[in-house]
Amino acid sequence: MSSDHFSSLSQTLLMGPGPSCVPEQVYTALSRPTIGHLDPRFIAIMDEIKERLQTLMQTDNRLTIPVSGTGSAGMETCFVNLIEKDDPVLICKNGVFGMRMEDVATRLGAAVDVVEFDWGTPVEVDALRSKLAEKAYKIVAVVHAETSTGVMNPVAEIGALLKGCDSLYLVDCVTSLGGMEVNVDEWNIDAIYSGTQKCLSCPPGLAPISFSAKAIEALQARQSKVPNWYLDLNMIVNYWQGQQRAYHHTAPINMLYGLYAALGVILEEGMDQVFDRHRRVHEYLVAGLEEMGLSMAVAAESRLPMLNAVAVPEGVDEAELRRRLLQEHDIEIGAGLGVLAGKIWRVGLMGHTARQENVDRLLQGLKILL
Amino acid sequence: MSSDHFSSLSQTLLMGPGPSCVPEQVYTALSRPTIGHLDPRFIAIMDEIKERLQTLMQTDNRLTIPVSGTGSAGMETCFVNLIEKDDPVLICKNGVFGMRMEDVATRLGAAVDVVEFDWGTPVEVDALRSKLAEKAYKIVAVVHAETSTGVMNPVAEIGALLKGCDSLYLVDCVTSLGGMEVNVDEWNIDAIYSGTQKCLSCPPGLAPISFSAKAIEALQARQSKVPNWYLDLNMIVNYWQGQQRAYHHTAPINMLYGLYAALGVILEEGMDQVFDRHRRVHEYLVAGLEEMGLSMAVAAESRLPMLNAVAVPEGVDEAELRRRLLQEHDIEIGAGLGVLAGKIWRVGLMGHTARQENVDRLLQGLKILL
Repeated sequence: MSSDHFSSLSQTLLMGPGPSCVPEQVYTALSRPTIGHLDPRFIAIMDEIKERLQTLMQTDNRLTIPVSGTGSAGMETCFVNLIEKDDPVLICKNGVFGMRMEDVATRLGAAVDVVEFDWGTPVEVDALRSKLAEKAYKIVAVVHAETSTGVMNPVAEIGALLKGCDSLYLVDCVTSLGGMEVNVDEWNIDAIYSGTQKCLSCPPGLAPISFSAKAIEALQARQSKVPNWYLDLNMIVNYWQGQQRAYHHTAPINMLYGLYAALGVILEEGMDQVFDRHRRVHEYLVAGLEEMGLSMAVAAESRLPMLNAVAVPEGVDEAELRRRLLQEHDIEIGAGLGVLAGKIWRVGLMGHTARQENVDRLLQGLKILL
Repeated sequence: MSSDHFSSLSQTLLMGPGPSCVPEQVYTALSRPTIGHLDPRFIAIMDEIKERLQTLMQTDNRLTIPVSGTGSAGMETCFVNLIEKDDPVLICKNGVFGMRMEDVATRLGAAVDVVEFDWGTPVEVDALRSKLAEKAYKIVAVVHAETSTGVMNPVAEIGALLKGCDSLYLVDCVTSLGGMEVNVDEWNIDAIYSGTQKCLSCPPGLAPISFSAKAIEALQARQSKVPNWYLDLNMIVNYWQGQQRAYHHTAPINMLYGLYAALGVILEEGMDQVFDRHRRVHEYLVAGLEEMGLSMAVAAESRLPMLNAVAVPEGVDEAELRRRLLQEHDIEIGAGLGVLAGKIWRVGLMGHTARQENVDRLLQGLKILL
């Protein structure tokens, strides 16, 4: 019965699209004693988690909490709370996660329009402006850091475009939060979600979200109940911020300890310092790859620091290289998805992983294997 | 920044309705190094988790997996995958979790009928038989261990009643699994869900579920897509049991380490031994409480071993007692919910908590405070 997978688990260098490497403080937090989800000591931790998330997301939104599921549950939460049947929704699509938004919103009965861009290129604000001139949308949604392609979308510019318009601005910051600036209030974002296993460097399992006053108004003006009991924010807020802290579902206590610690690690280093580190280590990686004759799949001005799409050289078996990198060098990198499968590797420099010595280890491994 | 809530966290004796006390092996597992969700070493752990859940649920169902959310996400998963608009659903209601089923199914557009019983009493099979004679239902749903009242519902008998009938039999075993027999195959259960923080003695965060071949047929015969991307089992199974292990959402790696270890602890002790221990410790608690002049709120034949509803004596401030028990004795017990608020305490004897020495500690505390 006690065949032990764990004793042989090494601290693999996680340089894929997430999960990323987890700092020691977070592992320690995960294994602290479980207490009750209504225990005053736990509620104090919840309150600080909310504050820490507000700081990192740069928002005064009171409804800023972690949802009890992974990043995709965050996506589901934002859409299911805001969409009613036949609501017009516009989705910017230039990768897997824009596609996923389309699927989620369509399943919920929205009237979904899509403005599409080539994978590996960013959303063009002008194309979006034309689309918005044609029709009024309840929700306009975009992915900040498109993890499937390594492209950074112009979330601040789109926010400026939407200023003063009735649409709710919904943003995916799963991969960006904690690795680059996310400024919810300045960018006019109404609903945003993230995940813990990317630049927050906590294991997967929680999805931080934030809703603006305008989004909460829309939620409260619904004609129909949210068709998802588990993710209904009307009830979840009673637990996270009500006077009575009414039980909704049992919160994932130990995962929340982990998130609390992970946010502490980032804020202690300093947000600007953390974002700078991601940028510097990204540039160091690009220089090293180019020196080896490898090339990046995304133009320099649209590259994400934390997710690097590297073109697979002609004649190289990309899956075999990943397999050997993992087995022989204990380094994980990611494969391409969708139309980019087989064409790119995805090298993550997320959170605790984003360090020069880790890039050196990867470059060393690649030199041996290529 | 490093205001440390953790250093002061004691190992509170968790005798509420969950979470329960967590054994050391599970804490250790939670803090093992995170690896990738597509790493072959992780897939080997996933495979063993499925086997261990099949053993504990006594089922050959291939689709037996943990869902990435707490117990209520398990409820949502079972209903959202099986319900299409206007499907007739019958729910047995004798507590909060039957009520929750009604709410979940109604939000999903089902035509919900309810057969209701007094809180604190079990579902009556005869009443259910009459109801089933009137109308054909796609789904008949019942809670095995009604955590809000301490009542055990006759899940095996209802399964026998439904044998040969077209209805899908949907069971909540959140609180029963791991503390008493749950025999999915022999009881003709088609869809079942649980949670990790009760008798599995793992922190909250995952919801083991199992679907029979008949339930999978119903899922595959749907006219409409599952209106919940995150919990769509059509896609989730591709990750958990597909040849290719296609990425759906990033699995909660470390929580799954914890579940793997928690299931190992139970199977190592032996299922029958574990169930016996729950029964014996429950009887020891009841005897001790009665000796003190306290009385149980549920008739002996319907009592759950792991969730004990104790009548609050006349004139006692029940909330104040719970507060002092926690602050002065580091013991958590639960309050009543709904119509039982203020009338009962809920004393959990779940999993690792179910030990005679813990009962002694509680009785000692109660004697001092009452």
